[in-house]
Amino acid sequence: MGVAELTSEREMSARAYTIGLDYGTNSVRAVVVDVSDGRVVGTKVFDYPSGDQGVLLDPKQPHLARQNPADYVEGLRVAVGGALSAADGAEGFTRARVIGIGVDTTGSTPLPVDARARPLAMDPRWTDNLAAQAWLWKDHTAAAEAVAITETAKAHAPELLAPIGGTYSSEWWWSKIWRCLKVAPDVFDAAAGWVELADFVPAVLSGVDDSTKIVRCVCAAGHKAMYADAWGGLPPKSFLARLDPRLADLRDRLYDKAWAPGRPAGHLSDGWAKTFGLRPGIAIAMGAFDAHYGAVGSGVTTGTLVKIIGTSTCDCAIAPVADKIADVPGICGIVNGSILPDYFGIEAGQSAVGDLLKWWVEGVCRGGEALHGQLSGEAAALAPGESGLVALDWNNGNRTVLVDTRLTGLIVGQTLHTTRAEIYRALIEATAFGARVIVERLREYGVPIERVVCCGGIAEKNDLFMQIYADVIGQPMLIAGSPQTPALGSAVSAAVTAGAGEGGYATWTEAQQRMTSIKEKRFAPRPAARRVYDELYGIYRELHDAFGMPGARADLASVMKRLLALKEKAVHEAS
Amino acid sequence: MGVAELTSEREMSARAYTIGLDYGTNSVRAVVVDVSDGRVVGTKVFDYPSGDQGVLLDPKQPHLARQNPADYVEGLRVAVGGALSAADGAEGFTRARVIGIGVDTTGSTPLPVDARARPLAMDPRWTDNLAAQAWLWKDHTAAAEAVAITETAKAHAPELLAPIGGTYSSEWWWSKIWRCLKVAPDVFDAAAGWVELADFVPAVLSGVDDSTKIVRCVCAAGHKAMYADAWGGLPPKSFLARLDPRLADLRDRLYDKAWAPGRPAGHLSDGWAKTFGLRPGIAIAMGAFDAHYGAVGSGVTTGTLVKIIGTSTCDCAIAPVADKIADVPGICGIVNGSILPDYFGIEAGQSAVGDLLKWWVEGVCRGGEALHGQLSGEAAALAPGESGLVALDWNNGNRTVLVDTRLTGLIVGQTLHTTRAEIYRALIEATAFGARVIVERLREYGVPIERVVCCGGIAEKNDLFMQIYADVIGQPMLIAGSPQTPALGSAVSAAVTAGAGEGGYATWTEAQQRMTSIKEKRFAPRPAARRVYDELYGIYRELHDAFGMPGARADLASVMKRLLALKEKAVHEAS
Repeated sequence: MGVAELTSEREMSARAYTIGLDYGTNSVRAVVVDVSDGRVVGTKVFDYPSGDQGVLLDPKQPHLARQNPADYVEGLRVAVGGALSAADGAEGFTRARVIGIGVDTTGSTPLPVDARARPLAMDPRWTDNLAAQAWLWKDHTAAAEAVAITETAKAHAPELLAPIGGTYSSEWWWSKIWRCLKVAPDVFDAAAGWVELADFVPAVLSGVDDSTKIVRCVCAAGHKAMYADAWGGLPPKSFLARLDPRLADLRDRLYDKAWAPGRPAGHLSDGWAKTFGLRPGIAIAMGAFDAHYGAVGSGVTTGTLVKIIGTSTCDCAIAPVADKIADVPGICGIVNGSILPDYFGIEAGQSAVGDLLKWWVEGVCRGGEALHGQLSGEAAALAPGESGLVALDWNNGNRTVLVDTRLTGLIVGQTLHTTRAEIYRALIEATAFGARVIVERLREYGVPIERVVCCGGIAEKNDLFMQIYADVIGQPMLIAGSPQTPALGSAVSAAVTAGAGEGGYATWTEAQQRMTSIKEKRFAPRPAARRVYDELYGIYRELHDAFGMPGARADLASVMKRLLALKEKAVHEAS
Repeated sequence: MGVAELTSEREMSARAYTIGLDYGTNSVRAVVVDVSDGRVVGTKVFDYPSGDQGVLLDPKQPHLARQNPADYVEGLRVAVGGALSAADGAEGFTRARVIGIGVDTTGSTPLPVDARARPLAMDPRWTDNLAAQAWLWKDHTAAAEAVAITETAKAHAPELLAPIGGTYSSEWWWSKIWRCLKVAPDVFDAAAGWVELADFVPAVLSGVDDSTKIVRCVCAAGHKAMYADAWGGLPPKSFLARLDPRLADLRDRLYDKAWAPGRPAGHLSDGWAKTFGLRPGIAIAMGAFDAHYGAVGSGVTTGTLVKIIGTSTCDCAIAPVADKIADVPGICGIVNGSILPDYFGIEAGQSAVGDLLKWWVEGVCRGGEALHGQLSGEAAALAPGESGLVALDWNNGNRTVLVDTRLTGLIVGQTLHTTRAEIYRALIEATAFGARVIVERLREYGVPIERVVCCGGIAEKNDLFMQIYADVIGQPMLIAGSPQTPALGSAVSAAVTAGAGEGGYATWTEAQQRMTSIKEKRFAPRPAARRVYDELYGIYRELHDAFGMPGARADLASVMKRLLALKEKAVHEAS
């Protein structure tokens, strides 16, 4: 008998599937997942048709990045429909066995909606107005507003900043909405409410037709909108009125409560059920940001740090609420329930990781994929310390732990013989040192980190990068089993939300154990390399503090000599 | 009548010529110069045939750089012979009218000689021994010896270090000879004496056949061998014995007196006179280092700083001995008579200038001459401050004022949009800031600098470079009239050494006024650029002191923000 035939009829009938939807910057992906083992049985990617790879730009405003909400709705239709069609052929799959849908998205990506919860941008009156579109996470037009929010909060409500690292960002909810109010008051006035993309898609699937009835996730609310139970939800109207009285008015039209995942955001509407051939009323999970459901899909537990490594890196960890983790200075956000219910979701990040290597290889050395490979190969032949270089990884500012976008890159130790491969390696090492700063800061404030799981293209493809991280951080680097952890995490959330009675799971632990995995391949720290990197990390920290922390006074006069000594030692040992 | 015909017969008969010989790193150049106006009537370059472009290397010793003395002798024959052949056709020239020969060379480039003053390396027993060759200026194998000499002098004879900037270099005479003693005692024992290349060539031309009779120039002795009248010449035997008793013994076989230019080092031997078709017995000028005769050929006077800008930069100034200039901390050397008699010769320098740009364009960006031009063009389109970058120009250490070879490069201010042209410009600016440090240090200690004359290929070809220097230093940048100022300076020295009675000159002032010139083209400082560069220079100084001066404590946390502010201001003003 073949393996397939071993599957008993009873097991077949018990089979259940969930759909995970991952709204990225350029496309949306849908996966149909077997709840029993996390296997993907159908997948479909839809590239947003509008703008430049899905991003609306304005040549006159270089910091502007918007998206057309119609792309989201069309993407929902095409991606889910396509993934289901692909799954139709899989053994045991029927559309009737789909028990729930989960959604993750970029964020903070707020969009204005009308009273019927429809995007303003889908109304012909506003279709051509850039302010009426979705304000994509990387839109930085609201820099001045972010500074003003931070200053106002520091002066009048410092508690608002504590859970989000002490600085409000131009990428976030209130900065963008306030900016809209200033530059496009007609759009602001026409909006009944605003909604994060992570809440918009579940509302669409659930057929919500009243903007006040959109269910909000605490992931977006807590990390980006200064929402916390401690002060009764969103910031007090008194605070918002200091920014602009109309923002205080808007608060009344938004929401009082946001929810952790596990509770349904809604149930599949009849219309979408018909469109997809799914059962109406199946669970729609709470939305969440891609990194957070990526952490779920990577098997995040207490003691696990999940690193989603891409152009930038997002670090996620959790800690039981019962442990009463203190605010961790410089950590972007600590929000109750933002990743899993009853746990603090802890988010940190590095502003440029893949982007830093891309800058070097493509921007400076003017190469492409082939040069990435070549430099990676040459860099891999170097021993730790052999380049004689140390860099700061701040070409795009520092998100954690300095929370300062007005920091820049630095590299020290160059000689007339320094090669581009040495600099390439030094830049990887710089991001690893930046990662270690985050790990040390979390541990220092009581967040246990016993296991590091990486996901993203760099984790899967760049062995040099992963080995350096293991050596620098001093932890084995594990790799998530799925190449699409956010979509998988969304599917996990849908399985828990649907519950055991529907063929899903009663607990997150069980769901993660069954549906997520870790690759066999892993990278262990090498003791000799660790010793060298401990010294280099010490130098990195000296530079980090000297250039990043006002008031720090450093003695840097031995830095170059120590780097030369490490270089000479490495060369000597290699010969 | 044509111009040529205007030359009266009397003037023709009075015409005199000298030969200038310039021994560089890769080749030797001979020029035949009309004493009346400095015009070159014949020239010939001879590329050293040995090693890699004339430099003997050892793959196992990356700091080793030697030269084959046979190349020097063959180069003498070919270059002088060729220059004379080229001159033979010039109107009014005859070989009988050549009244003297001057020689400049790299240094410190010592070589071991036998009792007959012949290079050991030309003896078949030693031909293949790298220690028996000339130890080229840029040989850095003697780093440990340099440190030990500095330490010993600091402890027991600090006065020895005062005129040479406080630190003895691995590039210099005693470091190299001591190194030879340690690693090749057989070579050391076989050497009757050692001679600087600058003294060797005049001795060869003069037919010296006794190593104790080689005439020594104070230029090499004072700047590189700790020679000074104050302590009776070379360092006392008691000091040398602290290093090694055999060095003290060697002192007896060296020299007691070294001389300023103006006095003949010898007179042309019959053999060479016959070889070249010159009159036997014509004056052979004192040898000197290329930079020093380059300063003479650039018209150095009190108040003039001559910058010889090449792979590295050598700065030369003079001050009347009567002015009793104090020791200037960090200045490589202040030696009575090393450039002109009765003046202190003051030498400073930057370890990498052209080399720094070459590293960037060729080593990192992997381009050639065309890319130098392209990046120079792109960089010229940037306003001061627009790159947002500041670099330290220490990829090859810092010669002045820190006198520390164990310093390295640094660049700060990079974003993900930083271009290679911006870095190219930042590196030029870094060398300009380094140049300004030297100017400020000299002025601070009473050396007047009212005029800056540049020479070398970069000065003649790179307008962007020159304009940046004018803006950063705040002085007009003048350019020497001759593209070969060291060879011309050697020829000037020969004309003075021969004297007025032979058709030369009685004074250096007269000789320089007649034989040297300044180009029409010059670069004036631009007030707006100066203001920006004053701010950037402030940042450079903060980094310079923080990374280069032990014990300095810096507050660098605002550096990146100040650079960003300057960048934004520059971009704003440009738009």
